[in-house]
Amino acid sequence: MDYMVNRNNAIESEIKEIVNDILTDYRLERAVDKIDIFNQPDKKEVIDIVEGLLQIVYPGYYRDRAYKIYNFDNKLSVVVEDIMYHLNKQIALALRFENKEMPDDEIAQKSQEISIEFFKRIPKVREVLETDVEAAFNGDPATKYKEEIIMSYPGLYAITVNRLAHELFLLKVPLIPRIMTEHAHSITGIDIHPGATIGRYFFIDHGTGIVVGETAIIGDNVKIYQGVTIGALSTRDVAKLRTVKRHPTIMDNVTIYAGASILGGDTVIGKNSVIGGNVFITSSVPDDTRVNIKNPDLKFKRKSDSEEKIGELQQSAEWFYVI
Amino acid sequence: MDYMVNRNNAIESEIKEIVNDILTDYRLERAVDKIDIFNQPDKKEVIDIVEGLLQIVYPGYYRDRAYKIYNFDNKLSVVVEDIMYHLNKQIALALRFENKEMPDDEIAQKSQEISIEFFKRIPKVREVLETDVEAAFNGDPATKYKEEIIMSYPGLYAITVNRLAHELFLLKVPLIPRIMTEHAHSITGIDIHPGATIGRYFFIDHGTGIVVGETAIIGDNVKIYQGVTIGALSTRDVAKLRTVKRHPTIMDNVTIYAGASILGGDTVIGKNSVIGGNVFITSSVPDDTRVNIKNPDLKFKRKSDSEEKIGELQQSAEWFYVI
Amino acid sequence: MDYMVNRNNAIESEIKEIVNDILTDYRLERAVDKIDIFNQPDKKEVIDIVEGLLQIVYPGYYRDRAYKIYNFDNKLSVVVEDIMYHLNKQIALALRFENKEMPDDEIAQKSQEISIEFFKRIPKVREVLETDVEAAFNGDPATKYKEEIIMSYPGLYAITVNRLAHELFLLKVPLIPRIMTEHAHSITGIDIHPGATIGRYFFIDHGTGIVVGETAIIGDNVKIYQGVTIGALSTRDVAKLRTVKRHPTIMDNVTIYAGASILGGDTVIGKNSVIGGNVFITSSVPDDTRVNIKNPDLKFKRKSDSEEKIGELQQSAEWFYVI
Repeated sequence: MDYMVNRNNAIESEIKEIVNDILTDYRLERAVDKIDIFNQPDKKEVIDIVEGLLQIVYPGYYRDRAYKIYNFDNKLSVVVEDIMYHLNKQIALALRFENKEMPDDEIAQKSQEISIEFFKRIPKVREVLETDVEAAFNGDPATKYKEEIIMSYPGLYAITVNRLAHELFLLKVPLIPRIMTEHAHSITGIDIHPGATIGRYFFIDHGTGIVVGETAIIGDNVKIYQGVTIGALSTRDVAKLRTVKRHPTIMDNVTIYAGASILGGDTVIGKNSVIGGNVFITSSVPDDTRVNIKNPDLKFKRKSDSEEKIGELQQSAEWFYVI
Repeated sequence: MDYMVNRNNAIESEIKEIVNDILTDYRLERAVDKIDIFNQPDKKEVIDIVEGLLQIVYPGYYRDRAYKIYNFDNKLSVVVEDIMYHLNKQIALALRFENKEMPDDEIAQKSQEISIEFFKRIPKVREVLETDVEAAFNGDPATKYKEEIIMSYPGLYAITVNRLAHELFLLKVPLIPRIMTEHAHSITGIDIHPGATIGRYFFIDHGTGIVVGETAIIGDNVKIYQGVTIGALSTRDVAKLRTVKRHPTIMDNVTIYAGASILGGDTVIGKNSVIGGNVFITSSVPDDTRVNIKNPDLKFKRKSDSEEKIGELQQSAEWFYVI
Repeated sequence: MDYMVNRNNAIESEIKEIVNDILTDYRLERAVDKIDIFNQPDKKEVIDIVEGLLQIVYPGYYRDRAYKIYNFDNKLSVVVEDIMYHLNKQIALALRFENKEMPDDEIAQKSQEISIEFFKRIPKVREVLETDVEAAFNGDPATKYKEEIIMSYPGLYAITVNRLAHELFLLKVPLIPRIMTEHAHSITGIDIHPGATIGRYFFIDHGTGIVVGETAIIGDNVKIYQGVTIGALSTRDVAKLRTVKRHPTIMDNVTIYAGASILGGDTVIGKNSVIGGNVFITSSVPDDTRVNIKNPDLKFKRKSDSEEKIGELQQSAEWFYVI
């Protein structure tokens, strides 16, 4: 019994020491030690706002079960006011984070203006999202219903969150747009920076592994598949890169098949062009061009014998049309 | 003070206007405006059903903490009845969605029959899942315990949800199977369409980025790795594609390494064949064949000098055996 | 009415039969039938522990909303004690799982010792995580704030969970480390085995699709991008592989661009080397070397005519610097 008491005392003092060590550690003032949580947006709150916005954008699909049974119009007022209240608060925290010296009432007014302006843009965003739904419906033989796309397609989820985050990005809200798109990234595997400019009728199929960079510009009616990177060429001078266009421009009606990488701020893919699967491009492609990898030599080896043939498979000429 | 009152009034009237604009927007009768939520399945409910089914399929692993302390047999009855009740309701909504004119009692009877038939198939599904667990255990040197596979392997999670969704797909339930597999896709990065036909002893390693299409047929004892696509070749005529086999057939005992793409409805990979990493195939491969990319020329450049060598790395002859 | 009663009776007896069938099924003693849940860790509990540890590691970012308003030091004691209590319990279950015969008090003492030792290592882990934050900040032109990295970068989330899991792995805790890293895999698409040894200043950009194997050794100041595999070459003898180094060694200051695969336990990438996008390597590369794929021949085809040109795009010499 005494042994148990001693042992428990020993554990207690170990815990005390551990807590002290961690508290001491927090005083080192590194990035990992920041505990000033009231002066930055709250990730969980932002994610709740995203889910709330989805309910407004797609009223029939993402609506919270609690809202179902009430009068719809009244309820929408309540939901809009509620989400705007929380968004407003998070924007204020984000502005304060970036502007330590700005007076409180200036922060309050600015965040109010931004959140009202953001909500005013929602019908415009919804108009574009309708084109995205249509593009997915026309582009994917595996679905019969637009409802299925809205309910379950990760590509639509990602572009929806992105278009909302992009408006906040344009309104120069710090931190929050990226938290929103990284949430979508976590849900879908699709990583589109909120700064990317994306046209109407955008269709992402499957989507896992897609990366679209901050300064990418994408035209109307563009289709991209899983594993596509629209990225930057690197240099060592990262600070300088922060201010330049370092991602490609994709013109209207371009299709980019699975696994292709298109890189560099000066790279332009001309309109109506088709980029084949796994193609790796760092310079511009003219309009109306199909680019694919020359059929790579494949090695065939029968397990029964030791001989080896090298040659091309008789591949379909149109193999780069991958769904 | 008066200023504040005026400002608050101004904000209130802004919000009123925003709500009105959004409500007006909802009346445009586009896909994004549908609010008829009672006539389609509820995504959150379907996800809850998936989690419930996992508790039944793997009674020791996914069981809700609440169920632990009760008498097991009695509890199972309650769980089965509960999940069947909810599934039944969602199936009814899905059937109603697809059959606007069907009488209520026909919907009720059909959904009841389907959910009973579905539950009857669970032992058969579990029998196949046991083979999947075994295949993972035999195929992965990084694990010592089957329990670890069931508890934490994303590949097993994806194939489990897929096998369950596939039964509902075969029973011609609309919408729900895809919601189920897209949930698994979100959790695992593995995108297998519920229509895909998959044999016993299926092993997915790592899994992120895998895409398996609706009409794919996969034999027994097949192994696939991260980033593999078993997909379609595209044509412009999407509507026509909705009714044909557009994804490959993979015969028994085939291994497909990371990043390989196999495409097209007429493509057959013969039994016992091995497809190397990153191989891109759009036509059939005979039985007992190893296919890999001829070692690509690589460029080497020492940072110290400006000269450049082009040549093959001395690569292992068996490099396509990637785990 | 009688008809309805009969029908309900029929359904009830169907459900009874289904439950019986499933219960019979559970008696087959396969891996899927295990219901001995008290002798193995609980996945949900482990995930809660991970989230709790993140609150301790990054006190300003992941802290539960409930903890915000209290005295910080006191609260930390409570949080540490709470998480240690739960971790202790889960470790005991994991030890019991692996050691069926070990006496209860030996299990209790060992798990207590391990969880105390684990918590003592947290300051050391935090010191390394600060270097990871710095590496991300210096490596990514798309961010202006370290706070943004901690709050929203999936790469930092993955390496944080991995460094914590790795300590438990070194302390020989079964099952739990892998549950932790598979949770991070599910959140981020980044699959790093808890056994991997990873140096300071590690930066993962974008990250979706990354796989790093159990016996990989990675030096300081290494950068890897989305879709990179640091994996094994396979042989048929899986059991034998369980005990050998089967994944590569990556020396200090190496950068590996998107989609590259580096494979095999004897493969060493020398210090300061750069591996280009999509490169596939199964043998060693000396120090200070840049490796990329020789520009592959691409096919260009104008849609307007039927002629086809084969040739190299005029690609940037530095195209392997992909961000």
